[in-house]
Amino acid sequence: MEIKLDTISSWAKRKGFVYPGSEIYGGLGNAWDFGPYGIELKNNIRDLWWKEFVHKRQDIIALDTQILMNKKVWQASGHVAGFNDPLMDCKKCKNRFRADKLIEEYINKSNDSQVPKNWAGEGTPTENLSEYIIEKNIICPKCGALDYTEIRKFNLMFKTHQGVIDNDENLVYLRPETCQGIFVDYKNILNTMRVRVPFGIAQVGKAFRNEITPGQFIYRQREFEQMEIEYFVHPDDAKDSYEYWKDEFYKWWTDILGIDKEKIEARELPKEEAAHYSDCTHDFEYKFPWAWGEIQALNNRTDYDLKNHQKHSGVDMQYSDPKTGFRYIPYVIESSIGLNRTAFVVMANYYNEEKYIDPKGNEQNRIVIKFPFNIAPIKYAILPLMEKNQEMLDKGKEFFEKLSDKYVCEFDKSGNIGKRYRRQDEIGTPYCITIDNQTLQDQTVTIRDRDTMQQKRIKIDELL
Amino acid sequence: MEIKLDTISSWAKRKGFVYPGSEIYGGLGNAWDFGPYGIELKNNIRDLWWKEFVHKRQDIIALDTQILMNKKVWQASGHVAGFNDPLMDCKKCKNRFRADKLIEEYINKSNDSQVPKNWAGEGTPTENLSEYIIEKNIICPKCGALDYTEIRKFNLMFKTHQGVIDNDENLVYLRPETCQGIFVDYKNILNTMRVRVPFGIAQVGKAFRNEITPGQFIYRQREFEQMEIEYFVHPDDAKDSYEYWKDEFYKWWTDILGIDKEKIEARELPKEEAAHYSDCTHDFEYKFPWAWGEIQALNNRTDYDLKNHQKHSGVDMQYSDPKTGFRYIPYVIESSIGLNRTAFVVMANYYNEEKYIDPKGNEQNRIVIKFPFNIAPIKYAILPLMEKNQEMLDKGKEFFEKLSDKYVCEFDKSGNIGKRYRRQDEIGTPYCITIDNQTLQDQTVTIRDRDTMQQKRIKIDELL
Repeated sequence: MEIKLDTISSWAKRKGFVYPGSEIYGGLGNAWDFGPYGIELKNNIRDLWWKEFVHKRQDIIALDTQILMNKKVWQASGHVAGFNDPLMDCKKCKNRFRADKLIEEYINKSNDSQVPKNWAGEGTPTENLSEYIIEKNIICPKCGALDYTEIRKFNLMFKTHQGVIDNDENLVYLRPETCQGIFVDYKNILNTMRVRVPFGIAQVGKAFRNEITPGQFIYRQREFEQMEIEYFVHPDDAKDSYEYWKDEFYKWWTDILGIDKEKIEARELPKEEAAHYSDCTHDFEYKFPWAWGEIQALNNRTDYDLKNHQKHSGVDMQYSDPKTGFRYIPYVIESSIGLNRTAFVVMANYYNEEKYIDPKGNEQNRIVIKFPFNIAPIKYAILPLMEKNQEMLDKGKEFFEKLSDKYVCEFDKSGNIGKRYRRQDEIGTPYCITIDNQTLQDQTVTIRDRDTMQQKRIKIDELL
Repeated sequence: MEIKLDTISSWAKRKGFVYPGSEIYGGLGNAWDFGPYGIELKNNIRDLWWKEFVHKRQDIIALDTQILMNKKVWQASGHVAGFNDPLMDCKKCKNRFRADKLIEEYINKSNDSQVPKNWAGEGTPTENLSEYIIEKNIICPKCGALDYTEIRKFNLMFKTHQGVIDNDENLVYLRPETCQGIFVDYKNILNTMRVRVPFGIAQVGKAFRNEITPGQFIYRQREFEQMEIEYFVHPDDAKDSYEYWKDEFYKWWTDILGIDKEKIEARELPKEEAAHYSDCTHDFEYKFPWAWGEIQALNNRTDYDLKNHQKHSGVDMQYSDPKTGFRYIPYVIESSIGLNRTAFVVMANYYNEEKYIDPKGNEQNRIVIKFPFNIAPIKYAILPLMEKNQEMLDKGKEFFEKLSDKYVCEFDKSGNIGKRYRRQDEIGTPYCITIDNQTLQDQTVTIRDRDTMQQKRIKIDELL
């Protein structure tokens, strides 16, 4: 069975996992909303991450900083000056392109080993990109012309104004990453939380990037959620800590989320692909059915951020070691995971279409999402066999009330029972509990396993 | 003991609950971040709400829509035209005021029973406000002059641009309320979720209002989080449903969050105070130690929103009753709760300063936050008595690992044990577990109750 991106996205839309944003008004670029099952799935991932990295650890605490921050934060971080895409338009067909992406595509296709002068991906000086495009005759992919406008640097941060007047003084940005909130509040944490290096600060929250080419369903959105950890270490310990975290996060993907080991890889980025602040970067990549895709970045950010904030704010960012008395600016090992993207990984990983033999001996097809129990949006579906039997309904409701105190359940009373099972398979519910005539007599129910489709009769009390 | 707003805010800053946003850069208006204990507190409130109104109910499902939506949403909802503050400046001292607020203050102080022509609070025509201000000689509160600029309508939505060019076509708003996402996706829900009226859609998420006068700590922020439910009912059932929800939410405040009954009131708003779309509004108010303050709005929004979206989008918003075949646009009962504000209520409600007699018989003061167990950021503090005793440390860590799988715990190994107890009192931890010499011999620990300060020795196994 070949699973395409469209297979997943149309299933997700049809089954209440993801809806196109603002759909009744024709949408808004690549905007997506999470539907009722999607938000439960996303929350489950978020809560597992929080439990694993915040609650179960003594050395990591969390924060929740604002999306809107003082604009000086982004001057200090380098985003105002450097967070740009090099854009140009084809004068003939008026389409807009990222110059660096056109060049990359050309290099990959042609196997040309020569690169533009001072080549640094999106950080390459625009004049060198222009020169190269003309020299190599890289024509417009839409119309074939070689007639572009000058390359302009387009900053990816969304701008807005806080206050009555839309002037420079009131300019603020929607944060393009959550981690700067952590660096900005780092000193507050040192002053109030009795932490000792090494320690980490975690945050989950929205970030915004005015991407020119978002796409691939929820893989690249302009508005998305990050789960980030900045782990502060002594500079001498940075390398070891980096290796430690690489292993820990491999376990996150494979042990906690249960992703197949052969579908997860940590790839070390060559210098020119990595962010300017990073001394060492690994991208965790997932093998989607259609291509490998980045799902996490692990960076050694060194003391780049704290030093810059110290310089721009005048606030001393040094940590004073209580044992030795030494003062230093810690290094930072960063993990950055996209939450929307993780939800996408999980959907793609557990989506299955399979054949089975129905009770009448006929071959049938079913879509079954084999979410592990800890991720599944609904854990138990409670299904009274006959909608018109009030006693069964009441029993079902009683059961729902008891079980939903602990697990997320769904109550579904109408329709053919086989169809109801199929419906639960399609949203990945591990267990269906059916209340039938026998339930009313002996307090037993049938419990059906999603993956094996086997049913077993058990006592209600045993289940609770 | 008199508790002031400053008492709470300085405690919250000192103890890692709330930090001023972007503080190292001089802040940003009334911006606040949640610190390590604050975010746990806020998450606990959010999760309790979600469990109560989404998971434990069969008739409410949830959604998570984008902050950035197509701008037509806000034309349809009336926010582009009507979500304004009437602003004017004093020409003499250059201070800026909300004309409607100055008039309200005047009316309250003077007991003048006359109001401006067509008085509708912030919705009053600006010329009527101007006339009234001159007629009543309402002078500038800062400098005493009666010399204002014309009143301008200032829209409270933050504007930004999605795409390369900052033109009208690319204009988008940061949502000023989460509920419009629910109305816009309502049709997707009808089409994919097999819901039947009455049913509700819940959402938790950020909203943004470019308020001229935010303030009172986290009470009124420009960036804040809402927990909203839109409950769809047959128009004939709207009144009963409204009453039902009024009772349910009273229980939310008093039973789930444990707020004192005499400090919660549902006040019916007179027509001129209520929003234009609301047929009936109750504000739930909490008696903060310094004043009553609004903490929830319950509205009968009628079919106002769905009708407007139907008109502007051309999409049929009717619900078809499966039993009768009747088609109609449902009425909506809305509950809107501010999550940041709820965190503030909870902090103010459980903050205590009290005297006690220490083991030496001396009177001492302590700050103790009497959070109920379900809200407390940390449930158990695990305290090895002597930091230098490796066996005690190991025992503590073992204990932390076991207990933190289920509860949020804190491990604190250093300092005088009395001080460590005080520290936990100040962040509202219900129980302190101390590991001492006897623990190593007989596997017992002492457990200390925050409120009574009584200690009891119990077996570890019993606790787990």
